Amino acid sequence: MRWRPTVLAAAALGGRALLTAAMAAVQGVNILDGAATAKAIRAELGRDVDALRAAHGVTPGLGVVLVGERRDSQTYVRMKQKVAAEIGVHCVDALLPDTASEAEILAAVEAMNADPDVHGILVQLPLPAHVDEGRVLGAIDFRKDADGFSETNVARLVMQGGPPPLAMPCTPAGCVELLRRHGVPLAGKRAVVLGRSNIVGMPVAALLQACDATVTVCHSATPDVAAVVRDADIVVAAVGRARYVEASWLKPGCVVVDVGINAVDDPEAKRGYRLVGDVDFDAAKDVASLITPVPGGVGPMTIAMLMSNVVNLTKASLGVETAPLPGRLGDAETTTRLSGLPKEGP
Amino acid sequence: MRWRPTVLAAAALGGRALLTAAMAAVQGVNILDGAATAKAIRAELGRDVDALRAAHGVTPGLGVVLVGERRDSQTYVRMKQKVAAEIGVHCVDALLPDTASEAEILAAVEAMNADPDVHGILVQLPLPAHVDEGRVLGAIDFRKDADGFSETNVARLVMQGGPPPLAMPCTPAGCVELLRRHGVPLAGKRAVVLGRSNIVGMPVAALLQACDATVTVCHSATPDVAAVVRDADIVVAAVGRARYVEASWLKPGCVVVDVGINAVDDPEAKRGYRLVGDVDFDAAKDVASLITPVPGGVGPMTIAMLMSNVVNLTKASLGVETAPLPGRLGDAETTTRLSGLPKEGP
Repeated sequence: MRWRPTVLAAAALGGRALLTAAMAAVQGVNILDGAATAKAIRAELGRDVDALRAAHGVTPGLGVVLVGERRDSQTYVRMKQKVAAEIGVHCVDALLPDTASEAEILAAVEAMNADPDVHGILVQLPLPAHVDEGRVLGAIDFRKDADGFSETNVARLVMQGGPPPLAMPCTPAGCVELLRRHGVPLAGKRAVVLGRSNIVGMPVAALLQACDATVTVCHSATPDVAAVVRDADIVVAAVGRARYVEASWLKPGCVVVDVGINAVDDPEAKRGYRLVGDVDFDAAKDVASLITPVPGGVGPMTIAMLMSNVVNLTKASLGVETAPLPGRLGDAETTTRLSGLPKEGP
Repeated sequence: MRWRPTVLAAAALGGRALLTAAMAAVQGVNILDGAATAKAIRAELGRDVDALRAAHGVTPGLGVVLVGERRDSQTYVRMKQKVAAEIGVHCVDALLPDTASEAEILAAVEAMNADPDVHGILVQLPLPAHVDEGRVLGAIDFRKDADGFSETNVARLVMQGGPPPLAMPCTPAGCVELLRRHGVPLAGKRAVVLGRSNIVGMPVAALLQACDATVTVCHSATPDVAAVVRDADIVVAAVGRARYVEASWLKPGCVVVDVGINAVDDPEAKRGYRLVGDVDFDAAKDVASLITPVPGGVGPMTIAMLMSNVVNLTKASLGVETAPLPGRLGDAETTTRLSGLPKEGP
């Protein structure tokens, strides 16, 4: 099934973001639909929250520390609150002015560390320039580390054996959970991660390796990224450059996870721009066997995984056994969605 | 210069281990001589120790916890003590019987945490089966973590930015320091690490990436290791299988670091066995541009890096600035030792 007729219909409706979403929804064939997958996860988490309330009388709580009035930060926080409400997680907000001192911000974090109604704490970044982000993040009790960024959770993520992390970085966990729920086998596959950030590249590489993929990490000092990508069964792009990954780099039949969200000028769009990923989606979708759209791919998964962390931290605080997403790591998927065979031509 | 005449002379002297060492010493051309490099580092550390004593009246102290009477553990500990004495590091030993309870071992660690004369603590592994190793290692104050295995130091090793680790895992640091001191450029090179252990594979991959190499980690679930190794400018083998890596896998001119120490039967050897690495050295040395021998390669570097950790932890405790080995990470070496060109044939 080709998507062209649908695209034309969708194009008549408006901007390209909508068009991409429509493609994902209607084509279905090779789209890793993060919006639908995240919706399913949110429903599961909602049932988990109900069960916790019934069995323990406890409602998972997310504490959010927001400093200043950055528009984008406010938008993110609002989205998180909306999803929390949908699932039944209650939110405790600490809204501080731009002028708040580091001591005041630390005090807000400490108050949440001590608050038994808060099970996960999120400090919205970036913080104002006069504040030491590392010190503020480091003040979060790792048992309430909703973002999975604490030293304890990062060390547990990259080490074999020993106690598992209590929470996982949300975007990386979202990438891997999306692959798992679409039956993409990871064990024994070649995975290439583009980018080595603390937030995405490093932890997604660790997660893919924990799932028994053979992982290569490319970064700004890699001279020939295309040559590395060419060997990949799975490509995770997290470099923050619009349409950086060309279709010609991809091995036919590979699976592409696009973490990038980049604004590019588009005079036809209402706002004058539209969002695209790090991958040239329009060309890559004809080469890849599965690919995430932007938007509607990894984005919705990230917030779902944040909520998964809050629910898991709540369970851990109660001594309830958790099965942290993404799944039991190393649990090899056996479907054949990733055949390694070339996808039929257009 | 070829080594054959020397080998024959060395062979007349005795076992193959000696032969390998003689090859390394005399050939010199493409051997990464860990014994000589470690000796140079120990001399530097000895001067550091003298300077610390002169300026601060402080002697770096290494606390060793040894439980039971395993022969190999006793040998390792003796080697460490010998090197400590050479450098001027003083040793505080806690020797406990096999029957020591976990509480007794933890008490020994806590005593060293509290002892101002101990700057680095080493718990010799393995511990007896009735003891939770993770709990004992986790009890070491990360500011005295001589092995660099604490969650704090591991997280700092794999994360970009933020505070650097106070100590680095010794064998991985030894591998990278050996490469640096032989002028092997890492930035922009393809590195393949065989093995993903907490002790070697994972941290050496993190260090190589911090030096701007493009790193791939192979492990037990990698189906075609040879195909991955073929792309490598730098190969680090840490799988614990005698002569696992074949010369035919290697890209001509690559650099090979062999972490393996495997005993193989050898009726001609005095003890009935000899030690070989994870790489088929005899064949690989004609393909690689540089290669570590076993023994005499990574082994001596490991103990030197342990002492470097103790000295650095001492400096950190005094607020003295440290430049932890291996060097300033990311500091691209500019020599042309790794030309990428095929080595001339035999």
